[in-house]
Amino acid sequence: MQLSRSIGLAAALLVSVTHAQTFQRLGTCPTLGCVFPPDQADFLAGQFFDIRLEVHAPINGSEANGLQPDEKFTFTIAKGKGKAVKASDYFKIQEPKLERWNFSWYEDLFARDAKKPSIVNVTSKAYRRIALYESGEYTATLTYNNGNTTKATWLVRNLEEVRKTKNIVLFIGDGMTTNMITAARLIGHKSINGKYQSKMQLDKFPVLGHQMTHSIDSFITDSANSASALYTGHKSSVNCLGVYADSSKNPFDDPKVETIAELFYRLTGGHVGIVSTAFIADATPAALTAHTRDRNQYGAVIDSFLNGITNYTWTNWTGPDVLFGGGAEQFYSPDLGGKTYMNKDYYQEFAKKGYQVVWNKTSLVSTPADKKTLGIFTVSNMAKWLDRNVYTTNLNQSLSPSGDKTAALDQPGLKEMTLKALDILIKRSGDKGFFLMSEAASIDKMMHVLDYDRALGELLELDDTVKATIAKLKEKHILKDTLVLVTADHGHGFDVMGSVDTRYLAAQNVDRKKRDAVGTYQNSGLSQYINTGNLTYTDSNFPSNWDPRYTLFQGLMADPDRRENWSVHKDGPREPAVPADPAQSPVAEYVANPEDGEGGILLNGTLPVANDQGVHSLTDVPVFAMGPCQEKFGGVYSSIDIFFGMAECFGLARGKPSGNYGHHD
Amino acid sequence: MQLSRSIGLAAALLVSVTHAQTFQRLGTCPTLGCVFPPDQADFLAGQFFDIRLEVHAPINGSEANGLQPDEKFTFTIAKGKGKAVKASDYFKIQEPKLERWNFSWYEDLFARDAKKPSIVNVTSKAYRRIALYESGEYTATLTYNNGNTTKATWLVRNLEEVRKTKNIVLFIGDGMTTNMITAARLIGHKSINGKYQSKMQLDKFPVLGHQMTHSIDSFITDSANSASALYTGHKSSVNCLGVYADSSKNPFDDPKVETIAELFYRLTGGHVGIVSTAFIADATPAALTAHTRDRNQYGAVIDSFLNGITNYTWTNWTGPDVLFGGGAEQFYSPDLGGKTYMNKDYYQEFAKKGYQVVWNKTSLVSTPADKKTLGIFTVSNMAKWLDRNVYTTNLNQSLSPSGDKTAALDQPGLKEMTLKALDILIKRSGDKGFFLMSEAASIDKMMHVLDYDRALGELLELDDTVKATIAKLKEKHILKDTLVLVTADHGHGFDVMGSVDTRYLAAQNVDRKKRDAVGTYQNSGLSQYINTGNLTYTDSNFPSNWDPRYTLFQGLMADPDRRENWSVHKDGPREPAVPADPAQSPVAEYVANPEDGEGGILLNGTLPVANDQGVHSLTDVPVFAMGPCQEKFGGVYSSIDIFFGMAECFGLARGKPSGNYGHHD
Repeated sequence: MQLSRSIGLAAALLVSVTHAQTFQRLGTCPTLGCVFPPDQADFLAGQFFDIRLEVHAPINGSEANGLQPDEKFTFTIAKGKGKAVKASDYFKIQEPKLERWNFSWYEDLFARDAKKPSIVNVTSKAYRRIALYESGEYTATLTYNNGNTTKATWLVRNLEEVRKTKNIVLFIGDGMTTNMITAARLIGHKSINGKYQSKMQLDKFPVLGHQMTHSIDSFITDSANSASALYTGHKSSVNCLGVYADSSKNPFDDPKVETIAELFYRLTGGHVGIVSTAFIADATPAALTAHTRDRNQYGAVIDSFLNGITNYTWTNWTGPDVLFGGGAEQFYSPDLGGKTYMNKDYYQEFAKKGYQVVWNKTSLVSTPADKKTLGIFTVSNMAKWLDRNVYTTNLNQSLSPSGDKTAALDQPGLKEMTLKALDILIKRSGDKGFFLMSEAASIDKMMHVLDYDRALGELLELDDTVKATIAKLKEKHILKDTLVLVTADHGHGFDVMGSVDTRYLAAQNVDRKKRDAVGTYQNSGLSQYINTGNLTYTDSNFPSNWDPRYTLFQGLMADPDRRENWSVHKDGPREPAVPADPAQSPVAEYVANPEDGEGGILLNGTLPVANDQGVHSLTDVPVFAMGPCQEKFGGVYSSIDIFFGMAECFGLARGKPSGNYGHHD
Repeated sequence: MQLSRSIGLAAALLVSVTHAQTFQRLGTCPTLGCVFPPDQADFLAGQFFDIRLEVHAPINGSEANGLQPDEKFTFTIAKGKGKAVKASDYFKIQEPKLERWNFSWYEDLFARDAKKPSIVNVTSKAYRRIALYESGEYTATLTYNNGNTTKATWLVRNLEEVRKTKNIVLFIGDGMTTNMITAARLIGHKSINGKYQSKMQLDKFPVLGHQMTHSIDSFITDSANSASALYTGHKSSVNCLGVYADSSKNPFDDPKVETIAELFYRLTGGHVGIVSTAFIADATPAALTAHTRDRNQYGAVIDSFLNGITNYTWTNWTGPDVLFGGGAEQFYSPDLGGKTYMNKDYYQEFAKKGYQVVWNKTSLVSTPADKKTLGIFTVSNMAKWLDRNVYTTNLNQSLSPSGDKTAALDQPGLKEMTLKALDILIKRSGDKGFFLMSEAASIDKMMHVLDYDRALGELLELDDTVKATIAKLKEKHILKDTLVLVTADHGHGFDVMGSVDTRYLAAQNVDRKKRDAVGTYQNSGLSQYINTGNLTYTDSNFPSNWDPRYTLFQGLMADPDRRENWSVHKDGPREPAVPADPAQSPVAEYVANPEDGEGGILLNGTLPVANDQGVHSLTDVPVFAMGPCQEKFGGVYSSIDIFFGMAECFGLARGKPSGNYGHHD
């Protein structure tokens, strides 16, 4: 998820929970007694997790009952139909100490407008780093307020412990839907009389699935929560990385769940690679090692990549073999303007632990494959395929990863990063195998700013990367030992409904007449992106013309005010809306950017006016699978089943406690 | 596809082709020599088809060359690398006679505005009811204008002739996308902490695929063309039923291709059933037996159901065992206001051929299963699930199938029709097996009018019907002998992006403030459709409350002007836009309906203002498969592959000529 200025503001407030849940006191706790992990949670046998209990005493509002928060609540665990046992006895740990806090929330938008928050006092306990080993159902029971109970039914899935794949490569097209794949195919592949003359690599996968991306407590998710579901088997709340959201103010004390990367490393010594075209502290990469209720703790995320979780006892972690992406500002020294964890220079921190550090494509390609490698190629998000390959003058910005304010002109793409990551992981992992997560982040980021062309360019680059990955795995004779998955973390409500005669659109002076430029059904005609123009690239299957007369009539369904001309944005990523009053901070209201969408139709948005970009959508997203265990990924299932599928394929279930594997560096 | 008044107008003009192809002279003919079937066409061995050749002589416009249309063009067929043989010799038929006509078209929107059509003179020949039997590639070559050639490469697929399934049930959710399935699941199934407590029947299918729905000559399709692709293995043009579009004025002389229903009946004597919630002459059912370039020839479509194609020699056809749906106006006598083929009473025509005729649910359920049965339950499209089950007063309209202007109160749903169709087909087909097509037509029709609630109700009814079908097949011990497919013919750009606090929306007076009622991400909250309200039905898995305070923030991306309040339309299907000037006919311009979307946000549309409803979209649509041959339907493929998959599963390929099977009545 691309954080807009407005959403970024909301997210910053999340730390106090106050403003986060306009319609819910605490999402996974409909009663006043809360158990996290909540009812219906599934677990991998032997997966580490924390338990958080809360008892809520609302002081005002519709739930107020005049009670003080209970200090004497009790908590038991029962396996199957067995006897309920005090949790500290069950897990053979000390009884945690009681914690107290309060928080406030708004019951609805009317309460928000009237500035009437509801205040809740809380008593709480947390059980840290425990695990369930025996498969089957468990009942966790919180008893509070003189006999009220909250029961959580937990299921430890019965999975085989035998390992079925040596390696897994997980591609995530952030925000990528089937609709977008269809559109990318149309502009990137030639068709004659309705028959495509070439195929997307994704179209060649033998197994297709759909996964449901909804949150645990809202039906629309963000990329933090959705990545956590994919990596841990636990759905959670918006903005959460590897934790369930509690109501405390501290963003680092929420109950954690162990991730596929952590499990794979702890239990088997497997090697891990992390690649993204986003700033590398962004949610999708972050969720592999970070554990926080607030995805915006970027500095802490970077530290977690290197050092794992250090504020509580947690799983053993000594850093991935590969960490490639953008976001230099979380690495270079605050002296240069960096925003780093505890003001350290994280290039140095990584180097101290034996990492090579590379800052551009040339170094990336030539660097040896036998060392752990950190590759940071730009400040903020990496340059888009369209700017690296077509509108290259847009690279002239002060974004050098060194922090020296020069331009980051020599940036790799997802393909170069992924292929190098594979070289390193293959070289270093030996018989241990590897797990690589590679994210095409800017499909999402460009959909957020309604920059459909750039988004589809990123999608075609992902497909090209998947194709090159399969070729590399084949060349290294490990294709049959490697499960390749391509999926998304959520969607955007995007589709293509026809074509636009941009010449006719520009020639009209009245918006209602401009709409005549839209051709639907038979008038949509054929794609002009492939059969006209003369752009050529090293990689095939990208448009030969990004600026044809007849473009795609495409868009989202949840928008800020904007002007649409359905033409490529040649000056860099689109900015559809701007502050109504640029002097106002924080921005209360956005209007259509007068410099965007020249000659287009002015359209009023549907989103709250504090939004300057589009939002995520509900739709199930596709899963493409090839390799060992591919059959586990067909049909329709929950996002958490991706975790369980990968964990079972790696044989990570443990019917009894297992020590840390050790570490490699 | 629901025909809007505006689109209906355009469609009516299609007969002359003149206005149909704003951007193309003739879609599948980029040069001046045209061969239909065109280059890249695939065939089932032994499938009947016609060939149409055209030579175009543009009189004016950018293609004008001063030539008269060639009368001496020649046409040859070559198998593989073999010798090119004159087509009439190859097929052992008489050389067809030369035809002549002219047509006009606009080169672009500027030419349309300037009223400057391009005129084209045409010479043509047609070869009727031929077939290719040997698998492999063929080259068809048209030589015209002193040595210019148009070459078409045709492929007869190499398919096994052995039959693998006894029966096929093909469900088509018209316009249904993955996005809609996700939304329907959210409102129809209960979830606790992100885990669904019940599954859609579709979610239980073992095999999932995606099919590409684009037209042969435009990337957006309609339901005629897309159904033809599913049933014949030949993509064609918008508005075409079982033909390639030629440029002649006659809508019944276009080159035909044989359908799965015709093939199954002709070659094996298999029994066919046709069920739809649309008027039964609508495109999706029509495409099984009709062959016309103009889907609006409703009377002729009804005649084709009963008598097959009679104006040319074609495949043997004696009517389906079951024909259930709406559209009584194409059956009852013109004396009662009927609009029938050659002014006949088609209830009588069907009765004469031995059909039982039923007009309501009560008769449908009780009628014997051993006779061919025609069931027509209303004028126009059938009542929607939401009106039959919740807002029942909306049924009080003069729509009796008898034509007597009383109300059609006792209408069956898709489930009752489908289950009865199965009873009849099972009883009558014996060892011959059956093919049943059952269409949930109003998913599409309600999406067209932006009536999301009714559309999702129809989708949930489809899912319920599939569930009941599987139970029936199991009960009759033929589940293992029956391939069950559920797919769509195209999409609409629909998604859900959050929730709407309808109480807050209604309480605001300014549109920009109303937008604050929209909750995205964490503020989308949980679905209130299942956990509130007290509606109950015979069938589970429908919402218990269609009118909660927090509704879905949902919509399309290609709209007319409209007012959105994101609330259920209790007074019957939505009418989002109305004529700007009701006195004007045909309607030139639509504006938001002032009586629709009370208290909502006024939104400007993106479609040409002559549109009063939404349009189709590009997205690949899902395919769910279960039963014999299910493995043929996984992954990503073209819509035509559904035909080839079904045909192979039925074993319909024929390496040498095969007589008609005969007939049954």
